[in-house]
Amino acid sequence: MQSIVKYKEQISAFIESISLDRSPKDLYDPISYILSLGGKQIRPVLTLMSAEVFGIEANKAIHAATAIELFHNFSLMHDDIMDDASLRRGNATVHEKWDVNTAILSGDAMLILAYQYFEEYEPETFRDLAKLFSKTAIEVCEGQQWDICFEKRNDVQIPEYLKMIEYKTAVLVGAALKMGAIVAKTSEKNANDIYDFGLNLGLAFQLQDDYLDAFGDEATFGKTIGGDILENKKTYLYLKALINGTAEQKQELTKYFSTTEGDEAAKIKRVKELFVETTSATDSQTLIKDYTEKALSILDGMDIPAEKKELLQVFSNELMNRRV
Amino acid sequence: MQSIVKYKEQISAFIESISLDRSPKDLYDPISYILSLGGKQIRPVLTLMSAEVFGIEANKAIHAATAIELFHNFSLMHDDIMDDASLRRGNATVHEKWDVNTAILSGDAMLILAYQYFEEYEPETFRDLAKLFSKTAIEVCEGQQWDICFEKRNDVQIPEYLKMIEYKTAVLVGAALKMGAIVAKTSEKNANDIYDFGLNLGLAFQLQDDYLDAFGDEATFGKTIGGDILENKKTYLYLKALINGTAEQKQELTKYFSTTEGDEAAKIKRVKELFVETTSATDSQTLIKDYTEKALSILDGMDIPAEKKELLQVFSNELMNRRV
Repeated sequence: MQSIVKYKEQISAFIESISLDRSPKDLYDPISYILSLGGKQIRPVLTLMSAEVFGIEANKAIHAATAIELFHNFSLMHDDIMDDASLRRGNATVHEKWDVNTAILSGDAMLILAYQYFEEYEPETFRDLAKLFSKTAIEVCEGQQWDICFEKRNDVQIPEYLKMIEYKTAVLVGAALKMGAIVAKTSEKNANDIYDFGLNLGLAFQLQDDYLDAFGDEATFGKTIGGDILENKKTYLYLKALINGTAEQKQELTKYFSTTEGDEAAKIKRVKELFVETTSATDSQTLIKDYTEKALSILDGMDIPAEKKELLQVFSNELMNRRV
Repeated sequence: MQSIVKYKEQISAFIESISLDRSPKDLYDPISYILSLGGKQIRPVLTLMSAEVFGIEANKAIHAATAIELFHNFSLMHDDIMDDASLRRGNATVHEKWDVNTAILSGDAMLILAYQYFEEYEPETFRDLAKLFSKTAIEVCEGQQWDICFEKRNDVQIPEYLKMIEYKTAVLVGAALKMGAIVAKTSEKNANDIYDFGLNLGLAFQLQDDYLDAFGDEATFGKTIGGDILENKKTYLYLKALINGTAEQKQELTKYFSTTEGDEAAKIKRVKELFVETTSATDSQTLIKDYTEKALSILDGMDIPAEKKELLQVFSNELMNRRV
């Protein structure tokens, strides 16, 4: 088995080799641009890793991995328009650097290009991959739409929130892993187990991301700490604090989350205190641990060699123990 | 063989039966809405017709036909944002009725749903359909990007313009027909011939559409006559008039096309006169005839029963002799 760094090098090299020096430039340049911004490339790494876990060379899954990474970047390009975000990985977003129309159309093209990468596989595999991809992609759209809806609602329930992050984030992690399984033609049980492992890990990852957005270390997290708080994002931390809090704490929190005016540093400081006081911070940590353990127990129950399990365990630990 | 009206009823009934009463509503309602606006449904009709031409029941191609219609409506939904259009088929566009973000995301979902309709076919057919679909969809995106680029350029050449309408419009007509051929598992030669027939018919159709936008009958054409002229669209009529015209005629035309100010009726009237005086109007008619004849000669050379040819000939004639 390769190391995680090796997988990352493999997928980076392949994606860099994609020739997007095509006409019309305004369609393809934004695709090259967003791909050049790098990112963690967790999803394609998982596809390669999964292929090896199920006994084939990682390289055989490189096209499926690329499709996953293209799809992820397509969703970022369109989400950035919807979120009116000006920065992506520290650089101008596509609709800022070009314009909204360019970001719409280049995103569309990227989604279609993603499907084309499955054409490298024979018909049965092609169909299984494309089918999983379409199902997952629709779920990601649904998750994004729920996320948008939740911004306007004041009655979001925790199960709804968890479903939203499952669709918006976790299903793609599950699908990335399952694609390796499909290319390797492993059993349906293995393919479903690895999907469920990824789904739970993805949920843990997103909750951790929300947690670190408030409680992470600015120097290593890579984003401004407290961004979600300033945007009044109804994360698990917020929703759980509303449930746990006293009437006074609830009132204070909802007041903070009803405006984007006022002293930003003071707001971040006090809201974090409220997350701690109401124990929503520790509840969040517990939930992250639950999902991680669920993922690891699914992995444990799988009928695959010990050294393969270990690789996925190492990956899970690295992912979940990050303070970045 | 069925009549064209029968095919249209068949596809309309199937599309109406699609259940889009799903959550989140803001994702699926705009899809139901744009599909409910109807339209000519030329493309899916061609898929059904092609299936029967190659010897299978039209109904076997209904899922492929639906994918084509979903894709067409996806491209309209996103193009309407880019063109800042407020009306589609006489009704509010999706981004007007909802908002831009909704139109982006629902469009994305519609593109993915289109792919899912191919899942009804066995793996080989699925792959052939999805492959043709992706290739065509990328070309449509490229055509749309060229169209946007051309708005800002003053040096557009006629071959470039023809390539643009080929990609933006004609390839989807070719693909619609080829999909019927793929589902019917006819020979590769037949599949390629019917594609080429559609490509040429699609080019003739788009040139005719541009021609009727200037010279059609308002009552039957369904759009305001002179819309392209008021928008300074560099259609074949315009580009050819610039080539054919005297220095004075060129100057007059470019002056009209450099502004959206001034008396609209007078502009339409005078620009149409210039199209006639420079013979770009008759040149356009000749080119439409050339493409139509090319299409019909490809059809003529095909090794299919005479009554099948006849149906496609009738369709071509109905399409090209419309003054609407």
